[in-house]
Amino acid sequence: MTADPGIARREGVPLPATEDVAWDKAAASIVRAGRRMDERGWVPATAGNLSVRLADGRIAVTRSGGHKGFLTTDSVIEVNLNGQPLHEGDRPSAETLLHCQIYGHFPDAGAVLHGHSVASTVLSMTSDDAALHLENYEVLKVFEGQTTHATRLAVPMFANDQNIPRLSRSVALYLDETKAGYIIRGHGVYVWGPDMAIALARLEGLEFLLSCELERRKLLSAIPVRDVT
Amino acid sequence: MTADPGIARREGVPLPATEDVAWDKAAASIVRAGRRMDERGWVPATAGNLSVRLADGRIAVTRSGGHKGFLTTDSVIEVNLNGQPLHEGDRPSAETLLHCQIYGHFPDAGAVLHGHSVASTVLSMTSDDAALHLENYEVLKVFEGQTTHATRLAVPMFANDQNIPRLSRSVALYLDETKAGYIIRGHGVYVWGPDMAIALARLEGLEFLLSCELERRKLLSAIPVRDVT
Amino acid sequence: MTADPGIARREGVPLPATEDVAWDKAAASIVRAGRRMDERGWVPATAGNLSVRLADGRIAVTRSGGHKGFLTTDSVIEVNLNGQPLHEGDRPSAETLLHCQIYGHFPDAGAVLHGHSVASTVLSMTSDDAALHLENYEVLKVFEGQTTHATRLAVPMFANDQNIPRLSRSVALYLDETKAGYIIRGHGVYVWGPDMAIALARLEGLEFLLSCELERRKLLSAIPVRDVT
Amino acid sequence: MTADPGIARREGVPLPATEDVAWDKAAASIVRAGRRMDERGWVPATAGNLSVRLADGRIAVTRSGGHKGFLTTDSVIEVNLNGQPLHEGDRPSAETLLHCQIYGHFPDAGAVLHGHSVASTVLSMTSDDAALHLENYEVLKVFEGQTTHATRLAVPMFANDQNIPRLSRSVALYLDETKAGYIIRGHGVYVWGPDMAIALARLEGLEFLLSCELERRKLLSAIPVRDVT
Repeated sequence: MTADPGIARREGVPLPATEDVAWDKAAASIVRAGRRMDERGWVPATAGNLSVRLADGRIAVTRSGGHKGFLTTDSVIEVNLNGQPLHEGDRPSAETLLHCQIYGHFPDAGAVLHGHSVASTVLSMTSDDAALHLENYEVLKVFEGQTTHATRLAVPMFANDQNIPRLSRSVALYLDETKAGYIIRGHGVYVWGPDMAIALARLEGLEFLLSCELERRKLLSAIPVRDVT
Repeated sequence: MTADPGIARREGVPLPATEDVAWDKAAASIVRAGRRMDERGWVPATAGNLSVRLADGRIAVTRSGGHKGFLTTDSVIEVNLNGQPLHEGDRPSAETLLHCQIYGHFPDAGAVLHGHSVASTVLSMTSDDAALHLENYEVLKVFEGQTTHATRLAVPMFANDQNIPRLSRSVALYLDETKAGYIIRGHGVYVWGPDMAIALARLEGLEFLLSCELERRKLLSAIPVRDVT
Repeated sequence: MTADPGIARREGVPLPATEDVAWDKAAASIVRAGRRMDERGWVPATAGNLSVRLADGRIAVTRSGGHKGFLTTDSVIEVNLNGQPLHEGDRPSAETLLHCQIYGHFPDAGAVLHGHSVASTVLSMTSDDAALHLENYEVLKVFEGQTTHATRLAVPMFANDQNIPRLSRSVALYLDETKAGYIIRGHGVYVWGPDMAIALARLEGLEFLLSCELERRKLLSAIPVRDVT
Repeated sequence: MTADPGIARREGVPLPATEDVAWDKAAASIVRAGRRMDERGWVPATAGNLSVRLADGRIAVTRSGGHKGFLTTDSVIEVNLNGQPLHEGDRPSAETLLHCQIYGHFPDAGAVLHGHSVASTVLSMTSDDAALHLENYEVLKVFEGQTTHATRLAVPMFANDQNIPRLSRSVALYLDETKAGYIIRGHGVYVWGPDMAIALARLEGLEFLLSCELERRKLLSAIPVRDVT
């Protein structure tokens, strides 16, 4: 066991009382969440990223590249609110800025999850609407401030853009009214919450509802065509 | 090991001969059923709830909130037939009343399961019918009193309602004729049986049949449209 | 350890050299196959059944009832070629006759699997054809005697019937020409092979192809309707 | 431990320092990849095959037959660049030639994966196009040389052919421009990369995109038909 906390952060190594327990718990929750997302098929190839903001304000985020279903605590690095890594040689994903944007905008945000699903990809690429509207589902109650199914939440959809700072400026215009996360077209969803458990529950809730929406659209064609010109 | 049965009920702790073995078995069956439902995607976010009625009449039900795929025996609390918790500080879900309604109505009911599936959600939100009709499926034989596929069972569908007592009054009108469980639109299914194993089998059977129904409706559009006005 | 081989057959109990090793291997292969089928969703509720014919001619089949995904070696009983149990008190499923029919008809048959899938259920209930025709798939090579994709196999579909002897008489007419198994409408598939590994591979192959067929039929509606009368 | 490296290659057997560590790592990566592909349903029946090229140029490939989800290191044999086995009695699949073709054509190729999915099978059998075109997906960035979603990759589709040398001559014409793998109609995909991890990531990426394409085609029918002649 060396004095280097980086080496000490290996998963499964028992930590002496002076080590970074808070960091290790955060990293471990990211590793577990990545496995959960992988079981659902939401982190295909090396897509997706996950982050947690610790109580002391530090931000833990997944490194660039690497499969998010097979993370180890070494896959988790620290960045500041501008998305810059604190340790030399660490490379965060370009999308880290989108995680930091949420932490900067919402003081209570404690975890941010980004995944790719077939439902979010297909719905966002086959609709020109500015947002998907989810209405009347009981599962809407998993999102912040929602206490009934009898409501209608908008999930904004933004054009994909490899220029992440530019993309984040589009997102910024809608963050205040975003209750259920947002979608980047052909790219996936961003969901957050006060901690990892709630963020994961909201991601599950959103993906469940997107699957329902996709199935409903496939049923539209089951209506016999009677009106034609 | 203390004298507090609440603390003694931790999963995996060997119990002295005087402890509440019946309760622990009931709680453990709920934990396992929650995992099974989660594997199938039937308890997304913090949705769903599970209960068991013990031989001595006590009712064990899942606490409000919390993910039903990751239950521990601490997640299981006791309520009376009116859905009120027996231990101070315990908070049951509002839907506990629907579980208790089944125990009150059916003397032989020993377990009640409530899950959310894409199929039940989509079918109930795209049909105005008062019930889904399942006909000619061999799997219908898993439901009470059914001995042949050559039958037709109705699965009543009720409008969702955050006022659970009011919702239960609608349900009460149809319980006697409900053989395969019922659906709350956009909310999920309620299924029961004399014990957890049979309740789980019936939940699986119903969800299997709802998946078949959803697929059949998607095939309707495969019929070339030839008659138009 | 008693002299009763029935009690000695508990899974995980080490067997003395004189015990029924062949039976235990057969029972264990059935337990594993049941888990595999359950992972794929092919044994919902208590549906499905599995059997193996040992080298000495004995037939091991799953008991009536019970979930086929959670079998133990106690779930496996012996029957004769007429489907009758050899031990008093053992109750085989009524469908055991369909397993025995295959063993009687095909001297090389060593394992028979019956599962329920959404694809086989939906395809068989939405088509009036006497058989499903599978053509040009590479996976057709997993069936007996097939060496190319450039072929067309018929999967006969029989009306469901609670009178199993009567159903088996319909099946008997087509067994010789059945290369990829058969379907009972709204009830599921029957597949067999010289041993459990090949039977499982053929079941997987058939279900894969049925899934492909179901998806193709859903795509039919993607063709813009231009010809109408 | 004998002198026969074949017997020494059993998974889980600790190897003395003089044994073939590089081979064992390659074989183990093939076994793990087969399990991963099986979890996703991409190696149904005994379909699919996997290979790795070691740093010293040796090619390790899965034997003919056998279920690719249940491989052991004994399932992995050595072949030369012409697809011929190095050890007497070893039987490689006929498709081994397609793996070797990639190793011969691309000096940097280190792993080749061939799987069968419902999406690739159905899309390739319901389209007469010479290739599938994938456009605007973020996940396209997992393929070689791709740095943006704003691109369009062609996935060539070749007619199936039991004469593998003849099939490989068709493939040879398109290999240089193949960035995301290729499809054999009704047969599955071929994907490769500099090592197993990247090959697996690209296979996942391609299958994710094919699933998106299949869902999009099913949505086409959701557009109300208004123009008819």
